[in-house]
Amino acid sequence: MKLVFVMTLLLTIFISPITYSKTSVADEDGYRLWLKYDLISNKQQRESYSSSLANANINGHSDTINIIAQELEQAIPSLLGSKVSVTLNKSVQSDLLIEKTNKRLVSQYQIKSQIEQLGEEGFLIKTVKDKKGKRTLISANSDIGLLYGTYRFIQLLQTGQSINALNIIEQPKTQIRMLNHWDDLDRHTERGYAGESIWDWHKLPEIQSQRYTDYARANASIGINGTALNNVNANSLILTPAWIKKVKALADIFRPYGIKVYLSVKFSSPQQIGGLNTSDPLNNNVQKWWQNKAKEIYNVIPDFGGFLVKANSEGQPGPGDYDRTHAEGANMLAKALSPFGGNVIWRAFVYSHEDKTERSLQAYKEFVPLDGQFAENISIQVKNGPIDFQPREPFSPLFGAMPKTPLAMEFQITQEYLGFSTHLAYLAPLYEEVLDTDTLVKGQGSTVAKVIDGTLDNKALTVMAGVANIGTDRNWTGHIFAQSNWYAFGRLAWDHQLSSSDIANEWIKMTLTKEQKAVEVINKLMMGSREHIVNYMTPLGLHHLMATGHHYGPGPWVDDLSRADWNPVYYHRADEKGIGLDRTITGENGVAQYAKPWKEIFSDPSQTPENLLLWFHHLPWDYQMASGEILWDELVNHYYDGAAAVVEMDKQWKLLEEHITPSQFNQVSMALSVQVKEAKWWRDACVLYFQTFAKRPLPKGLSKPQKTLEHYRSLSFPNAPGQG
Amino acid sequence: MKLVFVMTLLLTIFISPITYSKTSVADEDGYRLWLKYDLISNKQQRESYSSSLANANINGHSDTINIIAQELEQAIPSLLGSKVSVTLNKSVQSDLLIEKTNKRLVSQYQIKSQIEQLGEEGFLIKTVKDKKGKRTLISANSDIGLLYGTYRFIQLLQTGQSINALNIIEQPKTQIRMLNHWDDLDRHTERGYAGESIWDWHKLPEIQSQRYTDYARANASIGINGTALNNVNANSLILTPAWIKKVKALADIFRPYGIKVYLSVKFSSPQQIGGLNTSDPLNNNVQKWWQNKAKEIYNVIPDFGGFLVKANSEGQPGPGDYDRTHAEGANMLAKALSPFGGNVIWRAFVYSHEDKTERSLQAYKEFVPLDGQFAENISIQVKNGPIDFQPREPFSPLFGAMPKTPLAMEFQITQEYLGFSTHLAYLAPLYEEVLDTDTLVKGQGSTVAKVIDGTLDNKALTVMAGVANIGTDRNWTGHIFAQSNWYAFGRLAWDHQLSSSDIANEWIKMTLTKEQKAVEVINKLMMGSREHIVNYMTPLGLHHLMATGHHYGPGPWVDDLSRADWNPVYYHRADEKGIGLDRTITGENGVAQYAKPWKEIFSDPSQTPENLLLWFHHLPWDYQMASGEILWDELVNHYYDGAAAVVEMDKQWKLLEEHITPSQFNQVSMALSVQVKEAKWWRDACVLYFQTFAKRPLPKGLSKPQKTLEHYRSLSFPNAPGQG
Repeated sequence: MKLVFVMTLLLTIFISPITYSKTSVADEDGYRLWLKYDLISNKQQRESYSSSLANANINGHSDTINIIAQELEQAIPSLLGSKVSVTLNKSVQSDLLIEKTNKRLVSQYQIKSQIEQLGEEGFLIKTVKDKKGKRTLISANSDIGLLYGTYRFIQLLQTGQSINALNIIEQPKTQIRMLNHWDDLDRHTERGYAGESIWDWHKLPEIQSQRYTDYARANASIGINGTALNNVNANSLILTPAWIKKVKALADIFRPYGIKVYLSVKFSSPQQIGGLNTSDPLNNNVQKWWQNKAKEIYNVIPDFGGFLVKANSEGQPGPGDYDRTHAEGANMLAKALSPFGGNVIWRAFVYSHEDKTERSLQAYKEFVPLDGQFAENISIQVKNGPIDFQPREPFSPLFGAMPKTPLAMEFQITQEYLGFSTHLAYLAPLYEEVLDTDTLVKGQGSTVAKVIDGTLDNKALTVMAGVANIGTDRNWTGHIFAQSNWYAFGRLAWDHQLSSSDIANEWIKMTLTKEQKAVEVINKLMMGSREHIVNYMTPLGLHHLMATGHHYGPGPWVDDLSRADWNPVYYHRADEKGIGLDRTITGENGVAQYAKPWKEIFSDPSQTPENLLLWFHHLPWDYQMASGEILWDELVNHYYDGAAAVVEMDKQWKLLEEHITPSQFNQVSMALSVQVKEAKWWRDACVLYFQTFAKRPLPKGLSKPQKTLEHYRSLSFPNAPGQG
Repeated sequence: MKLVFVMTLLLTIFISPITYSKTSVADEDGYRLWLKYDLISNKQQRESYSSSLANANINGHSDTINIIAQELEQAIPSLLGSKVSVTLNKSVQSDLLIEKTNKRLVSQYQIKSQIEQLGEEGFLIKTVKDKKGKRTLISANSDIGLLYGTYRFIQLLQTGQSINALNIIEQPKTQIRMLNHWDDLDRHTERGYAGESIWDWHKLPEIQSQRYTDYARANASIGINGTALNNVNANSLILTPAWIKKVKALADIFRPYGIKVYLSVKFSSPQQIGGLNTSDPLNNNVQKWWQNKAKEIYNVIPDFGGFLVKANSEGQPGPGDYDRTHAEGANMLAKALSPFGGNVIWRAFVYSHEDKTERSLQAYKEFVPLDGQFAENISIQVKNGPIDFQPREPFSPLFGAMPKTPLAMEFQITQEYLGFSTHLAYLAPLYEEVLDTDTLVKGQGSTVAKVIDGTLDNKALTVMAGVANIGTDRNWTGHIFAQSNWYAFGRLAWDHQLSSSDIANEWIKMTLTKEQKAVEVINKLMMGSREHIVNYMTPLGLHHLMATGHHYGPGPWVDDLSRADWNPVYYHRADEKGIGLDRTITGENGVAQYAKPWKEIFSDPSQTPENLLLWFHHLPWDYQMASGEILWDELVNHYYDGAAAVVEMDKQWKLLEEHITPSQFNQVSMALSVQVKEAKWWRDACVLYFQTFAKRPLPKGLSKPQKTLEHYRSLSFPNAPGQG
């Protein structure tokens, strides 16, 4: 009787959190991200895992080791529904042994060759046998490597892989895998669509939100090891003593998770907060100021990562203000950080208000001549394309053009131009497309990825950065699927050879469902999603058609901004004859910045990939496309296909209801209803606008937009989020 | 064997959420507020409750009825660990019967006299007997009344009260019990210290956060039945069709919880969004515009509450721009809303930039002459004191001075002047102090509460408003204890006769702990907390000493603001002779606005309550206080006592660790460490500053401030939150 009561009680408590009453706090609101350790429903699999995971022993002494133990204590019982005994530094014969590499391990398990491949952060997960039996060994050259191995091992359980005969050797292909937060000190986030900055600066250092720990944990689980906390449009206050204390508090929380803190710095800080009357990088006092500032920071944050700098770009101060080069500016900072092991990450996204050269051409023009002049602790961070994170761009011509300089990749994870946080856009295919592009600068196989990972030109300092999509929204990223972009960025920064589809499958199983049919449907949704957005926003190489400032919605008609190359009309050049921007030698000549044979390929419309056609060429409305359609019809079809694909995504998603927790299902359903609406908005506004030039009817079978162009032009959204 | 396995599994799952690993999502992060339905640890009590709560039946058909059912299904099993069968419209003999009043109930249970006392929103909770046995009846004249009764009943269980012989009859003393959100349309919240606005306007109406439902539920549980969604410094966009759709989405969510939506409107909306060239309230087109706008709103939100208006105050437009009175302006809006049952809530917090009369005197001067001129669906909303939500103010002289006009109370729940969201300040004693103050205008017993609840002058329209402290922080209010102010505001708006100490005990038991000793300690902390803040910020009637703009920290030295009465020096008037603002007839003559005998009391330092002494009088540094100390010593002692009390609070709290969940405990501990620091900051900055005038030593035994006045004057906080 008593047992029955207890059982009832436990059942009640057990069951109550998985009923999704409208009046109750949703239990699966997305906060846990991909680190959901829910009971594996396949009993056979669970029992199979359990039988070889009754106990785990970790050898070591550090906060990181304690985190490993906590993570296992949390994950194994929750996933398997079985008890696990996790011990620290016990000489037990455990099913799972986690220990740093050492002579004993090497000789006992014959793992010399494997261990040689691990580097500082890599790990080995290997099924080993000894006299006492079979066990899983996780080893690494550092505690952080052990933590990474542990997350990888848990991921195997989460995604239902066998753990019977493991021999996994991994080490990251990029040295610095970092997030860039464009977060202002007042918590506004530039291009943030998931609430405000998670850094509650005002309350730091004393008040330390649980989020900070959970943020570090999520990043560590995918191998992210750096974070630049503040906006590249930087506020010099971040370097004042009061703020350094706040930064230290975060650094202390992140350290055991292997994450270093970086700060975006304003080049004019010596004047703004240092009392100097110049910030000239060749000035002695300026140099000393930065050296002292570095010392001050490292005094409290001994593993500080370094500075991220946006200089002489969009009005930011920089060395150019004193007729110094980017190299002279960066080298000064590099010298200040060098004694402490810090790096300078200097952005190549530069264009000056004075220089009338088209903005997309300026980075190459300014940086390529400086190749070889940068100190060795500097990496030049280049956006993936020459303009600014458009749904599709060709690769930046800087990749491959600066063989003597480490180049960092800057991807945007936040969806500034891809539907904010209401459009389902899985970005790994975009990242993959860029990384896999062959620059051909050293013959076939000179991929962008090899520029970034340093193997093409033998670089030691390698960096991949992603502009974060993280905010205070409970689900971190505003859209449940936007979590997949954070995840995929981390995975690709760790290993750019992973396929975006495989990453999607990992993420789906860890985040949404393990049901195979549902995984397949969702994989398809995700893999197609970015191309749908290209189609309904900027097909065939069109770009920069969005509304001014907030970039919310279409604005192809915008022509009133002070700088010519800020206006959408500059980029699409639609007129009665045709559409597209001639970037060949007869036009803006952007092709000249590409090496052979890309220069020739991009110069010739018939060779240019159709998905970049209008990026490089102005072509007549009746230009013949490969499909047999004329350009106008093809263009319109892309717009209609894109919008129709979203309707189909919405339908497909609705069929998945039984496999997805209600809160996740509803969040995505609501977002899809916005996306359906906004995809049509983009389609209709752009088609109606371009039709005023093309003066041709829609291809047969397509229904006319219901609203007028004037309606779309009249819309205004002064409070749209994320404004820069 | 199998049972043991299941038991282990259940135990694992049961236990895992109550271990507070640093690496895991905190389970008790404050999100649930006071609606925590955790298992009651006292087994006897649990069993006693369970024995009379095996089943519940609710008769009725509405969304509200469904919410009642869900709430019981969630609360009872979680609190009692026992099963409950909740049915709708079944003719079962249930332990708990919830049903609207009707003839059958009246005759069966003899409750005619009780029911006559319930009004529209009240409820009866009564232990009744019939042939089939004993049961608890919850009855009311409306479904909302039933919902209120249900929450009250659950509260009995949460706070451990007997449910064996109930006879609770309640009806709210105030008709409209509302929150005022000072939330801008870009999600910035004026005077918000808990993240940004919970209204994600950009994503509405499609994306409906779970928070909206949870917000409604929390409010309903304490009887709040109205919410003004946007800042009184209003943006006219809120009245455009796109925004009305967003407002409707929220209104639809709130409706079944009994909450009506109100909007703050900009008086110049007819010009800003209506295309008119005037907003003159006597202009025909302007009147029509508002009438049509009201129609448009009510067409989609049939129970829309009405407009909240800040006009001709701090630069906001208003009827005064056309030489019309507040009454003429308000009446125009009232006429537009009247056909639909809507109300105008017109704020008395007015001061014009042109009028040089001290701002605290202007409201009385402008409004009292208009008494009797306002339409009957208008309430004039008055801040509790004459200035602006200072830690202590005398009651506003408007209370009692406008017998022909409904006056609404405006309290501030957000702690603009009481330590933002890092100081523990339980505000119910402040609210209570104001409500219980006897205006004496109709002889003894003419309390402010009776002005507000309409009984003093027989008013039908009664309103109590609280400026919300709610934001996107996971715990809603930034500080766990700030939740108690939301809670207490709701409880006092429902029944101003409740004692702040009793309310504190309810809240503590529902939110933090039921352990009696701990409840007592926390009650003491809470009840003293506001007075400590008065002491370390603005003792003895001092006021308005805070820094400019953000109001963060002390700024008694500020003297450079363009309007004299914006400067702290205006209010404290410290000089070599003494300190305090002479508001008697020899000075600013604020006392003239008070009725007898308050006018006389406030005119005489020896009669003026010491805690308001320097509000009304400029007194010499050696003025003799009741304690026997001179004013300077007394003042300094207050500052030191206040700061010392916070150190003591911190100590007391630390002793409670075993009784509080770790996440709550840690959150409060971190906040207390800030408060200890900032209390000293206030103390030292103010004492050092006033000492420059008093030129006297600190009283014996007090340690000198460690930093200089110059240090405190040099501090600057450009990114402090909540700026207006």
